[in-house]
Amino acid sequence: MPDVDATAPVRADADPPAGLLDAFWRYERALMADDVPGLDALFADGPWTLRGDAGGLLVGHDAISAFRRGRGGAPQRRIAAVHVRVLGQDDAVVVAELVPRTGGRGQQTQVWRRGERGWQVLVAHVSAPAPAVDGRVWREVGTPLVAGSDEGPLSGARVAVKDLFALAGHRIGAGVPAWLASARPEPATASAVQVLLDAGADVTGLARTDELAYSIAGANPHHGTPPNARVPGALPGGSSSGPASAVALGQADIGLATDTGGSIRVPASYQGLWGLRTTHGRVTRDGLVPLAPSFDTIGWLTRDRTTLAVASRVSGAGAPAEPAPERFVVAPALLGDLDPAVQEAFGAWTAAHASAEEVDLGDVAAAQEAFRVVQAHEAWGVHGGWLTAHPDAVRGAVAERFRVAAGITDGEAARARAAVERHRQRFADALDGAILVLPSAASPAPQATADPTAVDAVRARTLRLTCVAGILGAPALSMPLLEVDGAPLGVCLVGPRHGDDALVHRAAAFER
Amino acid sequence: MPDVDATAPVRADADPPAGLLDAFWRYERALMADDVPGLDALFADGPWTLRGDAGGLLVGHDAISAFRRGRGGAPQRRIAAVHVRVLGQDDAVVVAELVPRTGGRGQQTQVWRRGERGWQVLVAHVSAPAPAVDGRVWREVGTPLVAGSDEGPLSGARVAVKDLFALAGHRIGAGVPAWLASARPEPATASAVQVLLDAGADVTGLARTDELAYSIAGANPHHGTPPNARVPGALPGGSSSGPASAVALGQADIGLATDTGGSIRVPASYQGLWGLRTTHGRVTRDGLVPLAPSFDTIGWLTRDRTTLAVASRVSGAGAPAEPAPERFVVAPALLGDLDPAVQEAFGAWTAAHASAEEVDLGDVAAAQEAFRVVQAHEAWGVHGGWLTAHPDAVRGAVAERFRVAAGITDGEAARARAAVERHRQRFADALDGAILVLPSAASPAPQATADPTAVDAVRARTLRLTCVAGILGAPALSMPLLEVDGAPLGVCLVGPRHGDDALVHRAAAFER
Repeated sequence: MPDVDATAPVRADADPPAGLLDAFWRYERALMADDVPGLDALFADGPWTLRGDAGGLLVGHDAISAFRRGRGGAPQRRIAAVHVRVLGQDDAVVVAELVPRTGGRGQQTQVWRRGERGWQVLVAHVSAPAPAVDGRVWREVGTPLVAGSDEGPLSGARVAVKDLFALAGHRIGAGVPAWLASARPEPATASAVQVLLDAGADVTGLARTDELAYSIAGANPHHGTPPNARVPGALPGGSSSGPASAVALGQADIGLATDTGGSIRVPASYQGLWGLRTTHGRVTRDGLVPLAPSFDTIGWLTRDRTTLAVASRVSGAGAPAEPAPERFVVAPALLGDLDPAVQEAFGAWTAAHASAEEVDLGDVAAAQEAFRVVQAHEAWGVHGGWLTAHPDAVRGAVAERFRVAAGITDGEAARARAAVERHRQRFADALDGAILVLPSAASPAPQATADPTAVDAVRARTLRLTCVAGILGAPALSMPLLEVDGAPLGVCLVGPRHGDDALVHRAAAFER
Repeated sequence: MPDVDATAPVRADADPPAGLLDAFWRYERALMADDVPGLDALFADGPWTLRGDAGGLLVGHDAISAFRRGRGGAPQRRIAAVHVRVLGQDDAVVVAELVPRTGGRGQQTQVWRRGERGWQVLVAHVSAPAPAVDGRVWREVGTPLVAGSDEGPLSGARVAVKDLFALAGHRIGAGVPAWLASARPEPATASAVQVLLDAGADVTGLARTDELAYSIAGANPHHGTPPNARVPGALPGGSSSGPASAVALGQADIGLATDTGGSIRVPASYQGLWGLRTTHGRVTRDGLVPLAPSFDTIGWLTRDRTTLAVASRVSGAGAPAEPAPERFVVAPALLGDLDPAVQEAFGAWTAAHASAEEVDLGDVAAAQEAFRVVQAHEAWGVHGGWLTAHPDAVRGAVAERFRVAAGITDGEAARARAAVERHRQRFADALDGAILVLPSAASPAPQATADPTAVDAVRARTLRLTCVAGILGAPALSMPLLEVDGAPLGVCLVGPRHGDDALVHRAAAFER
């Protein structure tokens, strides 16, 4: 057990009740030793115990204990001073000034209560010093990194650029350290970035992505998983994980991102953001690392609908502008495989807001499979050469997906491509110009500590939903309107091609 | 008064005592309206009240009230949920989940107590979401911004580079937005940076400086004053303010900085860091924006002596290595004008550690004045042309100093230069090869809200101390060994030219 320096001065407004400071130092020793049972025993049992830090507020002993088991130890620290406020014989507040081994100062506020099991913490609030930059969310940040025009409709907006877009003079990282290491500074800024700069927005920085954007989970084995700003310990959603977390954390106002199979809609859903996947081909993709060009689109994540509307408008200038249909439809084939709580929340919302008729999209599982094969084949076409030359560059689930992709023959891909075309026609016929309403994801965000098999199962069920807009090449808007077990979930509107702006405008009716 | 949305769900483990929630919402309304008397009335009177946030822990009602008066309003926010834990009829904890208007989540923990004046807060702990980057401390940050060699004695160390040094591909900002706006990316990295990279350190980012480094306060009117990591609300010290705060906050391990008239020693003293101003000319100054070349030196700020020793050793490779003298001396002429508490702390330290004999440095006030004139004349020589072309680029005290500098004639400068030479000889004779011991600054850090006249007076008294090493061109080591009224203060050792490494080694005897 690490040695704990218990010599800090104690400043108390009255004599500390017997045993309080012993318990306090016992807790400190257990914390430094990552003795989870010891820590659990010193926190009050039951649903009323609270513990908060920068990751969010945990409610109840179980949630707190699970957090401790998952984090792999607290940062080492020294206690510089202890302040005790005695509330009564059995209640006291202990505030500790912390000096982390890595510098800076922190604070730990604990409300202790004496019960049958002796002194235990009822409420804890911990502040650790902030890092220079949260490397889970960002790779490079400035104040700003690139300044926009002095005037414009996005003046003052801060943009988190997914680390797939070119910024002149900066390298692209693509979520893969080996990619970054072999990258050279880009000669020009991607059009999708430039149009935001021209509209007055500033680029705050380059934000993290899942490896080569080939995931919707939001985890990255190289630089950590960005936090879910709304659900402590949950996955942020990906692959636009960094832009989404940056916006949800208030560190940016617009996440400039990409969506091939759900990479904007899923993090928007998981973190309670607005997210728009644009019509395929609507926003120019120069200066962007591709994944699967037939489905790759550009879009944005925001905290409010208005900012999203402006980003979409300035980025689509010159493109066609289709109106949004009045009619909403739902597809029962998409809803059978959802979490029951998601079904219930989505059903209640559509009943209240969209009075949607039902349409038959046909065999959506087959469509999803065809989409998967074409996407994988294209992804290997784009990255296979580089990945072969850098065999250890990507890991885990992404490495496995590329391994499978490498085995797809041109014949299989051609058949899948034909199937995608058939499903596209079928979907278009079924929708008949209506807006399709569906959940943005099959479930709220799983916990980041969930096992990979469970995360993969969640992925498959969500891709069933997201592939529809991908196959249609249609815009898809995720609206942060639902809450399931306290976690956010998006309602998604899939509109007609080039109905992007109209779709965002139409959503004003649903804003809370 | 702004409207406060008081509809957040309240989750309480028992019926909240009468009046508690009323007081809670009254506090929220007062906070949103920046009603300082209202807030003061809702915090318990006296020395035992506590309020902590990322800026540090404030102890006592007076300190908390002063903080509120100085900050100009709290960030606007909404309360998403309220958790009440009832400790007794007159004691309760209220934890609020906060949603700042600018996004992210925060937490406010309050311990309320009912007394003669009704419900009042006894302990408060507030967490606001961290920004992408603290623009008071940094201009540009990466993970890292520039990676160092894989191996080396500084492997793993994170460097905050003062925004006066060239990094290839990045611009220099020099603490002046107009300077940055007209800057182009640097073609090469400054030697002083490169040697740290070669030793394995990573550059985390470019950190703030006072405008053109012409100050020791650490304030900057353009992008805010970096926080003093050790004294809530105090000036960080400058001009190496950003590197010092970054290191003190734990956001970097080494601050690469410059010291012309105290710009390393003063922030080291104010924030409890180790700081070394090197022998003039020892570390090559290519790729560095100069201030007054006759006195400009390079050096480092660290939290521990060992890291400083390595930075000094690798940066001075190839330079002469003089031994450190055994003998210590003090100069009474330097000590008369100090705060009494500083005199006492310094006197006690020298009595206990250095058994120093006294030397006569002559007319130190005259030496300081000669130093001032030469520095100013050189500063105008370096920057006068640019400042004339950019008349509003610098502000306040720095603008005033340049205005005075512009009026110094070549004849006045020549006479001052001759005087500096005489004082240099006089100092060298008096020291006779000994180490001069003196406080690193005349006082602990003033509060950032102190009026400019007071800050200027502090400056003049501190420059009396710091000019000695400047005139000698000698290395000066600030050691974080004293505490005055709870604030850090450095003990400074001025050693022989090129005794840099030996001086740092010698200081091992004084480490706490």
